[in-house]
Amino acid sequence: MKKKISKATLERMPYYYSALKKIEDDSTGNRPVFLGEKIISSNELSEKLGFSPEQVRKDIAELGQFGVKGAGYRFDMLRRVIEKVLGLQYRWYVAIFGAGRLGSVLAYGDDFQRLGFTVTALFDVDENLIGKKINDVKVYNFADLNSVAKRKLIDIGVLTVPEDSAQIVADSLIQSGIKGIWNFTATKLTVPQDVAVVNENLSMSLINISCRLAGSN
Amino acid sequence: MKKKISKATLERMPYYYSALKKIEDDSTGNRPVFLGEKIISSNELSEKLGFSPEQVRKDIAELGQFGVKGAGYRFDMLRRVIEKVLGLQYRWYVAIFGAGRLGSVLAYGDDFQRLGFTVTALFDVDENLIGKKINDVKVYNFADLNSVAKRKLIDIGVLTVPEDSAQIVADSLIQSGIKGIWNFTATKLTVPQDVAVVNENLSMSLINISCRLAGSN
Repeated sequence: MKKKISKATLERMPYYYSALKKIEDDSTGNRPVFLGEKIISSNELSEKLGFSPEQVRKDIAELGQFGVKGAGYRFDMLRRVIEKVLGLQYRWYVAIFGAGRLGSVLAYGDDFQRLGFTVTALFDVDENLIGKKINDVKVYNFADLNSVAKRKLIDIGVLTVPEDSAQIVADSLIQSGIKGIWNFTATKLTVPQDVAVVNENLSMSLINISCRLAGSN
Repeated sequence: MKKKISKATLERMPYYYSALKKIEDDSTGNRPVFLGEKIISSNELSEKLGFSPEQVRKDIAELGQFGVKGAGYRFDMLRRVIEKVLGLQYRWYVAIFGAGRLGSVLAYGDDFQRLGFTVTALFDVDENLIGKKINDVKVYNFADLNSVAKRKLIDIGVLTVPEDSAQIVADSLIQSGIKGIWNFTATKLTVPQDVAVVNENLSMSLINISCRLAGSN
């Protein structure tokens, strides 16, 4: 994408994608040509998204021209552009580090699969887990990371390891060529600039609620 | 809290709390009086947090006066004020709605327990799950929500239910008196103003990574 989309708009894009995807899924059974011809209005999108129609029109204007005068947007073009903005035109291969409770649950993520993320490997150091399968995905020995990462074309690593080993594991997976990290540990990772880290700190979310219930926010 | 703390500072507070808590936990075995006397410098906090010393001094200045001239801050006072800002001086009782894979994992959250959040109930509609125990927490019939919520003093409800039933479950738990909702479904909930909702949309995090790997962000 050469065109610059504002950060705020970009952050709303996954919601657009999810709404369009849902409309698409709900119309399963219709002829494919249906979605190709479908026009979706800003009001319809606004209703599905909970954003104002003005917001929707402004957001979509940033993406390009999909308008059909007085009617709405071309569904298929809009969907394809948003998909591209979000990097969802590709299939992404995901490895989960730590095959414990949380790692196992993530290996079952049907939603991830539907969006184009495929879990192709789990890694652990626990000999009782290595070799097992979780939702048909094999648990590999962490020591074999380099060879497995290449064979399985892993793009994204999910960290569900103990806090103390998070940085070490991150260093190893970056060295093996993985460029994206989804970090479920509370450790603040230090990574090179070309590595994308998204932190998922569940405790912080819970504190966010208590904070608001206690009336600070 | 009467004093107004800026939103940006407030959002950093959980990290301060977590850092102070860690220092406290690491000093287990020392006489309690030790932490009462402990002075922590902005440089020390900066290093643990990854924020600049200037940022740390600015943030803490918003909370009040804990400084010991030329040395740092009184550890125990700082910890207690941040605890209060975050609502962590209370013990919070949590119920998990949906005793499936994700709900079960959350019932095992040791970190939550350590912060003062206690899971006291799980709810489900599946008769195969009702009556079972997960990490020693009983799975109740969702139909019994009202009586259980009162008996168990539930403050916060965690939604790990199917997307279609998220709003219905949310309505029920609000009616039973629960004021905080941690929403793991992709449904945008409509709630009264005095109910605090935090959305945890795991798919969005994953999309955030693909978006950055694809170079849009």
